[in-house]
Amino acid sequence: MNEKINVAIVGYGNLGRGSELAVNQQKDMHLFGVFTRRDPASITPLFAQTRVYPDNELADLKDQIDVLVLCAGSATDLPEMTPALARDFNLVDSFDTHANIPAHFAAVDAAAKAGGRVAIISVGWDPGLFSLNRALARAVLPNGTDYTFWGSGVSQGHSEAVRQIAGVVDARQYTIPVEAAIAAVRAGETPELSTREKHTRLVYVVAAKDADTDRIEREIVTMPNYFADYDTSVRFISEEEMASEHSSMPHGGSVFRVGKTGLDGQNAQVLEYRLALQSNPEFTSSVLVAYARAAWRLSTEGASGCRTVFDIAPAYLLDMGAAEMRAELL
Amino acid sequence: MNEKINVAIVGYGNLGRGSELAVNQQKDMHLFGVFTRRDPASITPLFAQTRVYPDNELADLKDQIDVLVLCAGSATDLPEMTPALARDFNLVDSFDTHANIPAHFAAVDAAAKAGGRVAIISVGWDPGLFSLNRALARAVLPNGTDYTFWGSGVSQGHSEAVRQIAGVVDARQYTIPVEAAIAAVRAGETPELSTREKHTRLVYVVAAKDADTDRIEREIVTMPNYFADYDTSVRFISEEEMASEHSSMPHGGSVFRVGKTGLDGQNAQVLEYRLALQSNPEFTSSVLVAYARAAWRLSTEGASGCRTVFDIAPAYLLDMGAAEMRAELL
Repeated sequence: MNEKINVAIVGYGNLGRGSELAVNQQKDMHLFGVFTRRDPASITPLFAQTRVYPDNELADLKDQIDVLVLCAGSATDLPEMTPALARDFNLVDSFDTHANIPAHFAAVDAAAKAGGRVAIISVGWDPGLFSLNRALARAVLPNGTDYTFWGSGVSQGHSEAVRQIAGVVDARQYTIPVEAAIAAVRAGETPELSTREKHTRLVYVVAAKDADTDRIEREIVTMPNYFADYDTSVRFISEEEMASEHSSMPHGGSVFRVGKTGLDGQNAQVLEYRLALQSNPEFTSSVLVAYARAAWRLSTEGASGCRTVFDIAPAYLLDMGAAEMRAELL
Repeated sequence: MNEKINVAIVGYGNLGRGSELAVNQQKDMHLFGVFTRRDPASITPLFAQTRVYPDNELADLKDQIDVLVLCAGSATDLPEMTPALARDFNLVDSFDTHANIPAHFAAVDAAAKAGGRVAIISVGWDPGLFSLNRALARAVLPNGTDYTFWGSGVSQGHSEAVRQIAGVVDARQYTIPVEAAIAAVRAGETPELSTREKHTRLVYVVAAKDADTDRIEREIVTMPNYFADYDTSVRFISEEEMASEHSSMPHGGSVFRVGKTGLDGQNAQVLEYRLALQSNPEFTSSVLVAYARAAWRLSTEGASGCRTVFDIAPAYLLDMGAAEMRAELL
């Protein structure tokens, strides 16, 4: 008899591999397997014991799975996948297309309620743990100013935008927060900061052999939305240097709230939540897996419908009894 | 008709005044009044409209009050006060005598359940928001190491201990974290740190006119538990300097978890939650007041019994609807 939570992973890219690692760190969880749209025979999982299934077998196995961790993209996959699966499975996803969260929430909520399941959407660090700390800080300090800084870290979206430029073989874009801005906020100041004053961008490019690097640089730094509003540096490097120096996926950032208390608002109260991550996908999937535990537990209590991080009490996330938690962590 | 949450404050020291300020910042709350064991006529509240009652009138007014914010000490007051009031009132307290939390929880839980009320205990920043972030970090990164640093800030307990020494007229003790230790942890290292390696102590003393300052300094730095295990600096200052430079109550600190992910645990993931507070009591009471909202809301849903920060979903803390929260904060 297996009393552990049976977790299945849907999608086996960076997030899927991170979730495979994360489930194996959680003592109360058992990894049922990984589901992929690719040929399972073509996949070598990180752990030899991990079973790989074709995703069309998922529906037939629903009685053996307690909760799904969806490891697919927000752009095209999750808007269809999450509502389609939420009727039959408890699940978590990392949907992060901010403008579409209301519609995604409504679709997932309807499906989860119809099936009597619990879904937690938009889980990760931003949206996710950053959102949670924004909410906490706002609740405690209603008079205040919020700041979010991202980086230093790799932005996949910006890297991909550069790769579309003619003559670019490969590119990696780092988002870097402006340290002077962070220092001011950390000191309790509440500056008004333009886009340019908050972050800079650094792009490493592998150019094609006879490409015009001046033109490539100009196309990058003037690209609307992505780079034009920032101070951007471009460095041309070799394919070898790209592979050896820029293959990891660090990221991070800080959420601040500078609140004011006192009869005249004279006391600055600075709250900072800071992440420095050597592997962005491994951390994001670690958050997903902790919230998968909450989805499963809420489901065992009879709950159904869609949730976000705002709706989950911390106790649901931990593999620990309430009395033990009070004794060890309070 | 008053649709706001009617909040009453019990106890009117630093925390009570901080709560008076905090309730006035919350748009969905109305300050019913302050209850004190002193003569109400002897008290001048911060706001002219604040009503001050003798504490023996509290029981008679219970039908007009939605939730109490208890602003009394953990050493002698709260162990009796919280269980005594939890039968008739929803309430929050800041009980922080760690070893006695299990007994306090049990006594409050029994009373709150008997009366059908909700009590949230041990609310503030440590215990409180620090505990919450410790729990979150542990849930997400089961393989990791925790660190808590306090300060720079005034420790009331240590200041009071110094005031007991013969020849000391007044004293203020600052707890200061060792920056090198913080820097190492922030960089993803997991050093084993002794007490001395984590914090230093700085004591400002006003000595009596003909007191032996060498003896006072020796008595301070060798005092068991309070100072002997730390590198402690003692500075003798005038009464005037004490009044002008050391009358505020700053504090703060950082909670870290350095987690390891990856197949060989090769990726360090550093989480930091940091507070820099210009007024410790005003911040602590701001946290209490936000959790008072949660106690009241849980009560309106029919809940009863004792809770801690681990049991409260963030959404209960905010004066904001769920859809608005998802749109603005997620």
